[in-house]
Amino acid sequence: MIRTIEWTDEGVVMIDQRLLPTQEIYNTYTTVEEVAEAIRSMVIRGAPAIGVATAMGLALGVKNLTSGENLESEWQKICETIRVRPTARNLFWAIERMDRVFQAHSGSLAQVQDALAREAQEMHREDIEINRRIGRHGQQLLSQGSTVLTHCNAGALATAGYGTALGVVRAAVEAGKGIQVFADETRPFLQGARLTSWEMVRENIPCTLIADNMAGYFMQAGRIQAVVVGADRIAANGDIANKIGTYGVAVLAKEHGIPFYVAAPLSTIDMGTPTGAQIPIEQRDIAEITRMAGQDLAPETVQVANPAFDITPNRLVAGIITEEGVARAPYVESLAGHYRIASERSGN
Amino acid sequence: MIRTIEWTDEGVVMIDQRLLPTQEIYNTYTTVEEVAEAIRSMVIRGAPAIGVATAMGLALGVKNLTSGENLESEWQKICETIRVRPTARNLFWAIERMDRVFQAHSGSLAQVQDALAREAQEMHREDIEINRRIGRHGQQLLSQGSTVLTHCNAGALATAGYGTALGVVRAAVEAGKGIQVFADETRPFLQGARLTSWEMVRENIPCTLIADNMAGYFMQAGRIQAVVVGADRIAANGDIANKIGTYGVAVLAKEHGIPFYVAAPLSTIDMGTPTGAQIPIEQRDIAEITRMAGQDLAPETVQVANPAFDITPNRLVAGIITEEGVARAPYVESLAGHYRIASERSGN
Repeated sequence: MIRTIEWTDEGVVMIDQRLLPTQEIYNTYTTVEEVAEAIRSMVIRGAPAIGVATAMGLALGVKNLTSGENLESEWQKICETIRVRPTARNLFWAIERMDRVFQAHSGSLAQVQDALAREAQEMHREDIEINRRIGRHGQQLLSQGSTVLTHCNAGALATAGYGTALGVVRAAVEAGKGIQVFADETRPFLQGARLTSWEMVRENIPCTLIADNMAGYFMQAGRIQAVVVGADRIAANGDIANKIGTYGVAVLAKEHGIPFYVAAPLSTIDMGTPTGAQIPIEQRDIAEITRMAGQDLAPETVQVANPAFDITPNRLVAGIITEEGVARAPYVESLAGHYRIASERSGN
Repeated sequence: MIRTIEWTDEGVVMIDQRLLPTQEIYNTYTTVEEVAEAIRSMVIRGAPAIGVATAMGLALGVKNLTSGENLESEWQKICETIRVRPTARNLFWAIERMDRVFQAHSGSLAQVQDALAREAQEMHREDIEINRRIGRHGQQLLSQGSTVLTHCNAGALATAGYGTALGVVRAAVEAGKGIQVFADETRPFLQGARLTSWEMVRENIPCTLIADNMAGYFMQAGRIQAVVVGADRIAANGDIANKIGTYGVAVLAKEHGIPFYVAAPLSTIDMGTPTGAQIPIEQRDIAEITRMAGQDLAPETVQVANPAFDITPNRLVAGIITEEGVARAPYVESLAGHYRIASERSGN
């Protein structure tokens, strides 16, 4: 079991994903500012993991308050501190969920501190359970012996554990399906090379690492039977924001008649965003592209663009795998249906 | 003017393209073995540049012979030494052309040495002239103010000078068209980041460097009006072998209705290869993917694939720009037509 993030008495413990696979370093973060910086600098990344980190960061912010004075305005400041990445839906989802707990409180500071800490830990526990349900639904889409291409890391490291896209792979492997993985290295941050490869090697799941621009070559050669990726935000109509390059993989999958699946919890779906056109795309530091290991990879004066996500239109998506099953087009209806089932399940 | 390769009395001088853009180091290679190793290790790369390097390497091999004994078998050994990369057509084209000069000789060793050295220099001179003609034809395809996406480096560094795809860009800029360039970084060897960016910055041609997986994002945003790439080998039917990732760019271009052009001299066209399926694809060292600047980018035990080229089927190609004009589908006929014009031109 890969430990991505944990709530402890000392603070929030996270593995520094920037150092993988060469170093496995766990750090303890004791303030909401530190957790926010960890999210911003990608110590932790992946929408579901960001959601859990956000909840824990908020709980930490309130835990560190020494008085209950101006609690509402302190809470707003804490929430503002953690809004450090614009695209991942789960960051905002976590704030909204924690805010409901905060607003519902009516006791002492100690009681609200406790309620928020418990909620954050509950979200951590739920995330793993939700991933396992995503895995059970999703693995049914994969045939015996098939090879799955994935982009970026939607694995245990992108979640509280188990993973979304890699959760589907894990569930298929657990079902004895003899699945193989092709992992796009995923420039510029190399989540595929550094994180997906590391997870697959640890669990002896056969995995071939390729550069992003090789996906077409292997699809053309008939080596890929399915694509499964995660998502950072899903619009109500099923448009997908995910790691830059996902859109190109989806277009290639369509060209080759290969099903392109997205695996994500309902917390990644933003029913308030009608289409992908309304999803903000984060632009990151160009040094992610121009430097590596202290070495310049490009002339200093060249212009560089570094959008961190792209939008895959719903027409390219064969299915969205949530904890409630596999949603199919038209997604406006099927995703709303998953929400209904989930709220009936939770007894709301 | 960027000096890629030159014949001098001391040997063949090449800029070490592995060290760009941070270091501009010219080395002198004095044996055919050294030139072969320079081609293999990508001191020099790009099909037309490989063609010129091959010719110069062969001339050097014969120049270093001290006796005319067993000249034919020595020549065969020299030719064998330089066959170090399988995909680039120009390597084989250069051997064939130099072999015709060798076979036609009937004089002393000094005379054949001189004939081969002159032929290699003539091929260098011709390559620049051919690139300028490609540029003149190709620039007519680009509208005023358009932005051109290119993949890998098909510039001055990939040729004797000026470039094929970047020659088209240069000619359009010289024609006052206000062209901008998007350069895919081109993993794993980063020819786009290191070489294309460097060429564009030197000449003040506006250039934006992106990771390979960002091409779809910018096409979707309407930022790209044309794709122009080079080629390593073109089959008689117009299928294109070019740097890995070219195929993915071509599929994306089709998806967005963006014309995808290939710029290459006739020496890159292999009329003896009917389709792309017969073109051998070089598989290179996986360390190109897993290590950079002495740092591991992936777990040591992960499997890695590193095909250096892919095949873009002719149906995705809007035009093939040669020194004789712009060939259009069906390419079996149009490419053969360009050959006819070229041979009439040369008076054969």
